[in-house]
Amino acid sequence: MARLVLKFGGTSVADLERIHNVARHVKREADAGHEVAVVVSAMAGKTNELVKWVQDMPRVAGANVPVFDAREYDAVVASGEQVTAGLLAIALQSMGVEARSWLGWQIPVRTSKAHSSARIEEIDGSELVRRFELGQVAVIAGFQGIAPDNRISTLGRGGSDTTAVAIAAAIDADRCDIYTDVDGVYTTDPRIEPKARRLDRIAFEEMLEMASLGAKVLQVRSVEMAMVHGVKTFVRSSFDDPDAIDSSPGASPPGTLICDEDDIVEKEVVTGIAYARDESQISLRRVPDKPGVSASIFGPLAAENVNVDMIVQSVSEDGSRTDMTFTVPDSDVARAISVLEANREEIGYELVQSDKNLVKVSVIGIGMRSHAGVAATAFAALAKRGINIRAITTSEIKFSVLIDSEYTELAVRTLHAAYGLDSAA
Amino acid sequence: MARLVLKFGGTSVADLERIHNVARHVKREADAGHEVAVVVSAMAGKTNELVKWVQDMPRVAGANVPVFDAREYDAVVASGEQVTAGLLAIALQSMGVEARSWLGWQIPVRTSKAHSSARIEEIDGSELVRRFELGQVAVIAGFQGIAPDNRISTLGRGGSDTTAVAIAAAIDADRCDIYTDVDGVYTTDPRIEPKARRLDRIAFEEMLEMASLGAKVLQVRSVEMAMVHGVKTFVRSSFDDPDAIDSSPGASPPGTLICDEDDIVEKEVVTGIAYARDESQISLRRVPDKPGVSASIFGPLAAENVNVDMIVQSVSEDGSRTDMTFTVPDSDVARAISVLEANREEIGYELVQSDKNLVKVSVIGIGMRSHAGVAATAFAALAKRGINIRAITTSEIKFSVLIDSEYTELAVRTLHAAYGLDSAA
Repeated sequence: MARLVLKFGGTSVADLERIHNVARHVKREADAGHEVAVVVSAMAGKTNELVKWVQDMPRVAGANVPVFDAREYDAVVASGEQVTAGLLAIALQSMGVEARSWLGWQIPVRTSKAHSSARIEEIDGSELVRRFELGQVAVIAGFQGIAPDNRISTLGRGGSDTTAVAIAAAIDADRCDIYTDVDGVYTTDPRIEPKARRLDRIAFEEMLEMASLGAKVLQVRSVEMAMVHGVKTFVRSSFDDPDAIDSSPGASPPGTLICDEDDIVEKEVVTGIAYARDESQISLRRVPDKPGVSASIFGPLAAENVNVDMIVQSVSEDGSRTDMTFTVPDSDVARAISVLEANREEIGYELVQSDKNLVKVSVIGIGMRSHAGVAATAFAALAKRGINIRAITTSEIKFSVLIDSEYTELAVRTLHAAYGLDSAA
Repeated sequence: MARLVLKFGGTSVADLERIHNVARHVKREADAGHEVAVVVSAMAGKTNELVKWVQDMPRVAGANVPVFDAREYDAVVASGEQVTAGLLAIALQSMGVEARSWLGWQIPVRTSKAHSSARIEEIDGSELVRRFELGQVAVIAGFQGIAPDNRISTLGRGGSDTTAVAIAAAIDADRCDIYTDVDGVYTTDPRIEPKARRLDRIAFEEMLEMASLGAKVLQVRSVEMAMVHGVKTFVRSSFDDPDAIDSSPGASPPGTLICDEDDIVEKEVVTGIAYARDESQISLRRVPDKPGVSASIFGPLAAENVNVDMIVQSVSEDGSRTDMTFTVPDSDVARAISVLEANREEIGYELVQSDKNLVKVSVIGIGMRSHAGVAATAFAALAKRGINIRAITTSEIKFSVLIDSEYTELAVRTLHAAYGLDSAA
């Protein structure tokens, strides 16, 4: 017998038929003797509808600026998960499975006071565990908690993943199963490289890089939380036939386990290739090469919430002037340029240049820590294909290259093959 | 300065534009210096959608019997009012009015444990009052509370009226304004009798008879609660232009005040004429005239939830056999007949007869208590029009006659004129 948390997203609970399908997955695990908590999102599209009402309300009420109170946003938007949790509990009861729905304030899931983007601070899992002992499944509304002001808080979009991992930590679950529309984490995007392979295991640190670099399987925050609390997180498909899956102890259903690197026996040097589109490069030419210049550039950008990613500073020839290049999302370019122009005198650059529609391709693997020269393989392979690298950044377990977007697919496939990730078939 | 509760139903909050209109009513009262709590229903149609999901879920999940857990019904259905309360709070804030939404569990509104048809047992209004002192309007989700099991409870359909009156009692409000799609309580249904007049005042007891006899302005339970706690309840139109209404002290906006009869200076003998369609008459012929026969008839009917209204027992000529006639809603006739047939031997009647599509017309007025012969006027007026009376029941402040439905309009107009209720115009 194991203690499991199962999480289902909005697509998996989009209508009553799909909620029934989710209930079949839950029943399978309960029938196998496991203790089960299920975390659900709102029905697909519901959160968007609620958010739009909240955003439109001030304008309809004649306000000049479309601001709204985050507390009220939370009260409105959290209602979506409340509906799904109740319906799933009813579906389970109808199938003979003891079940009870739980809202954030009932458990309680205590969060910070940052309404609409709160962080989970503490969960009391004792009542859920007590109910397990009575044979009851807990159906938990994701994405929500209760703030110190005794009001509903929400965790920000995709927060149900975080709820699931946090609940798993609170009740000391053996595993947190994230049911998604894909059947696991792949070595790269299978839409680009059909030879991509599903990984059986991936380390938390690697998944963190994969998630933040554009592999949209899991929310970054939920992976961070899983890593901190050591929650084994299993990404699997909600479209598999619930009755065809073996849930007995020792069985290994299809999916990818995100776990501690110590739990991965055969560590690959490179685990996967990720990419992020819609990057822009901004270059400041002939910036004075003196202390404090970085602060004069990135301070004002941060103040305006411009999301700066890669930063490359060339070494100046004579020690007086240098070039500074960095990337921002395409959507932030105009804002970044206007910030830079407003601060032109203070920074002291001669020229600002920008290029939109670039792509960042990243090679990820914890094996890099102990292997030298991993990046060289990439540079050689890309050069052979005539792909120009605009910038390079590296960290302990990954490196990224910035290239023109028309080479995205070619670069991903080239690197996938270069590191031996292609499937045999 | 007064302390007011304002209640708006689903039609008044059906979309963002109407919620804005509600906010204008609230702002007008707040600007006039009043302390304001607003109670709102779910957006029109929303509760029906949620209820349908709950009802359909067991069947979709393969259950043979479409039963569902009332606790989960409450969790799902209460979400409708949560959305409206949050949106109205945002609308008010956008118009410069300090406002905060409140759910049942936050106030808290403590109810009985009867999920899906709970009764309000206790409301702690202290925090609302404290917020009034800070200049804050309380926007309260109607229809819901929290049960002793720490779960959301709902009050049954139309429960937002009850919430409004209960909140008014809890915070000792000067008045509870029920905004509806009519501008008050009329002497009779204006669609039948255009000469119907709006009443300036009506006593709680009279309103109770009007409400339960088919005047669909207010939930019966809310009137009962208003009577018990002496809450002055004002029925008024949500369609009036919010800015054209005078809310200053001493002003008398259009509407009907439901109040203690001592607050009504000029008591009319007859206040109004109500009617209820779709009544059926069932007659049991030649029932043994002996003790216990009523129990043998109405016991089994009550056990099957048949809603029996008027009961008329003829006096038997020779003391051995009598006829027993009573009315039930048309929708209960088939069930009632089958119950009676199943108990035929025990009751001992000779024949059961039924007539559908009848109408009960009622004449209501607290003045009847002190005036004799009020009913005689009705009998004479109806006889003059050739309307046959099938049955008569009387109580302290009303009497009802059962007639064929094709005479409904004629009977209502005849009685309206007979008791001098027609407007001068």
